[in-house]
Amino acid sequence: MQRCLELARTAFGRTAPNPMVGCAIVQKGEIVGEGFHPKAGEPHAEIFALRQADTRALGATLYVNLEPCSHYGRTPPCADAVIAAGIGRVVIGMVDPNPQVAGQGIAKLRDAGIEVTVGIEAADCQTLNEAFVHRIVHHRPFGILKYAMTLDGKIAATTGHSSWVTGTAARQEVHQLRSRCDAIVVGGNTVRKDNPFLTTHGVAQHTPLRVVMSRTLDLPPTAHLWNLDIAPTVVFTGSDGNLAMQHRLLDQGVDVIQLAALTPAEVMAQLYDRGLNTVLWECGGTLAARAIADQCVQKVWAFIAPKIIGGNDAASPVGELGLTEMTQALSLTRVAIEAIGTDFLIQGYLANKQ
Amino acid sequence: MQRCLELARTAFGRTAPNPMVGCAIVQKGEIVGEGFHPKAGEPHAEIFALRQADTRALGATLYVNLEPCSHYGRTPPCADAVIAAGIGRVVIGMVDPNPQVAGQGIAKLRDAGIEVTVGIEAADCQTLNEAFVHRIVHHRPFGILKYAMTLDGKIAATTGHSSWVTGTAARQEVHQLRSRCDAIVVGGNTVRKDNPFLTTHGVAQHTPLRVVMSRTLDLPPTAHLWNLDIAPTVVFTGSDGNLAMQHRLLDQGVDVIQLAALTPAEVMAQLYDRGLNTVLWECGGTLAARAIADQCVQKVWAFIAPKIIGGNDAASPVGELGLTEMTQALSLTRVAIEAIGTDFLIQGYLANKQ
Repeated sequence: MQRCLELARTAFGRTAPNPMVGCAIVQKGEIVGEGFHPKAGEPHAEIFALRQADTRALGATLYVNLEPCSHYGRTPPCADAVIAAGIGRVVIGMVDPNPQVAGQGIAKLRDAGIEVTVGIEAADCQTLNEAFVHRIVHHRPFGILKYAMTLDGKIAATTGHSSWVTGTAARQEVHQLRSRCDAIVVGGNTVRKDNPFLTTHGVAQHTPLRVVMSRTLDLPPTAHLWNLDIAPTVVFTGSDGNLAMQHRLLDQGVDVIQLAALTPAEVMAQLYDRGLNTVLWECGGTLAARAIADQCVQKVWAFIAPKIIGGNDAASPVGELGLTEMTQALSLTRVAIEAIGTDFLIQGYLANKQ
Repeated sequence: MQRCLELARTAFGRTAPNPMVGCAIVQKGEIVGEGFHPKAGEPHAEIFALRQADTRALGATLYVNLEPCSHYGRTPPCADAVIAAGIGRVVIGMVDPNPQVAGQGIAKLRDAGIEVTVGIEAADCQTLNEAFVHRIVHHRPFGILKYAMTLDGKIAATTGHSSWVTGTAARQEVHQLRSRCDAIVVGGNTVRKDNPFLTTHGVAQHTPLRVVMSRTLDLPPTAHLWNLDIAPTVVFTGSDGNLAMQHRLLDQGVDVIQLAALTPAEVMAQLYDRGLNTVLWECGGTLAARAIADQCVQKVWAFIAPKIIGGNDAASPVGELGLTEMTQALSLTRVAIEAIGTDFLIQGYLANKQ
């Protein structure tokens, strides 16, 4: 199963709206077929593995981290292909939460007389596809808020200067994280102050969609984000955004989308409709707080640099949430910490209010 | 040597202005005498160990984490006692930085024909007595800044409410830390807002001196800090502090000291004169920043709770330092991290500008 997860991860960040799936077929203790789902519209992992195994699939055991599908989507049902190939046993990491599958793939296999085991390495399988599961269950992309702060809780000096809070290893880790996401969101302020690239800086071929939220469209006429040779960019704005800037952006090929209500929730709805699984919030504290309040952040990646910058007016990672008592603070669960170069990364999940 | 450090630690926080010293005498592979320095004015560790070893000290090896003294202080020189007892070999953790000793104890022992080895477990010995060493070298107590913040860098909600940022395990750890310090400093604001006890809450018998810095003396007439049954309290004020409050405090037995310049550096000078080794800054961000700027903080203890409180006006652990570029941030060295209950503790040292 760990081999399946390894295979699945090959396509990390490229399968949306589909899950990451890896599959291995074992005949007499030997792997005779392997595959992973490379991207939506292409065959599923099982199909690649069955093709490779060919006649050796007969009576073999098929391992897959997610339940084989039972419905006709862009491709025919994998469960049918597994049955047709004469697979003897199927070991599944987790049930597919997609209501179009949701146990029907397993039922189909069992009805065909195949022995099916479910829930092997289930926790790892759930974590790998947490974004896909969130998308299916909540009809929204999975949101990750990432920030880098000093040990005294500042993301910039009083002047706004922030290059760099963390060291090269942590920044490299961020590029890796970006490569596993489908979109990165920032606010207009970040564009004005930092002129970021928001790319993976060569650590991966995949570059996520770059998203800007700007009510006013008071944005610089030239910015790295308007250079679409590197990656696509979409700007969400309200109904009263600067018209001249809107045309200037459109002329450069940047998508500009006017929303009646420019909120994180509305932007996430739009990104859901575009089929995205994972959205990374790399914004300043004001937008981060609005994203949290709008239930658009499921996971937090907080980098902490062991340095003190001070500053009464220095920006902090999360703005106003309207919480007046420390007991109201939003607790993270499943918290993990690791040292990355000279910095630390604390990760955890925010509970979803239902 | 680790046994010596263990013995020395028995008196953690109670030996100022003296160092913590532990001593073990080994005769034929067996410990025949042990001792530690319990507090200033009482005999040194070596003397307790020699007394216990009695005639078995003859030809034995004496281990001690700090060079035996060679001068007459409140007690006669230990080096003389070691020689008189007929010790054959002395193993020393580190040289005493006190200029009245500084190698002269070692020289005395060697002159008497004793084999002396120096620098065993030197790093651990230095760390144990880092406050004593700082005091000797810089003529100031060693300053530790402790704070507890949320993962988004706040020490309180926007309202000032801060009970509690961290969990019980972390707060217990703070009580342990206090028991190893000689004084705790807060500002008037902390007294007004939190009405703290600043005690060890029963984790240790030793309770440090409680210190308040308040320019205005605009302090509550009743406060836990004015209850001297628990621990002594001293209030430092400027020349324009509220006279009525000054008298009220004095009437309750609280020390009130007027300083021409009420600065962290001046307060540390006063605490040095009182013979203190370690001073814990448990103040808010404004005073913390002034203490850092005044070179009164050598070490930082930052507790981080994995929770998000938000708040544009929520207090942050370090106020204005006048640093405008992120590259000017004060880097911590020798950084260590540990999980304490559900929280994290990051410790590190601030470089002293000379």
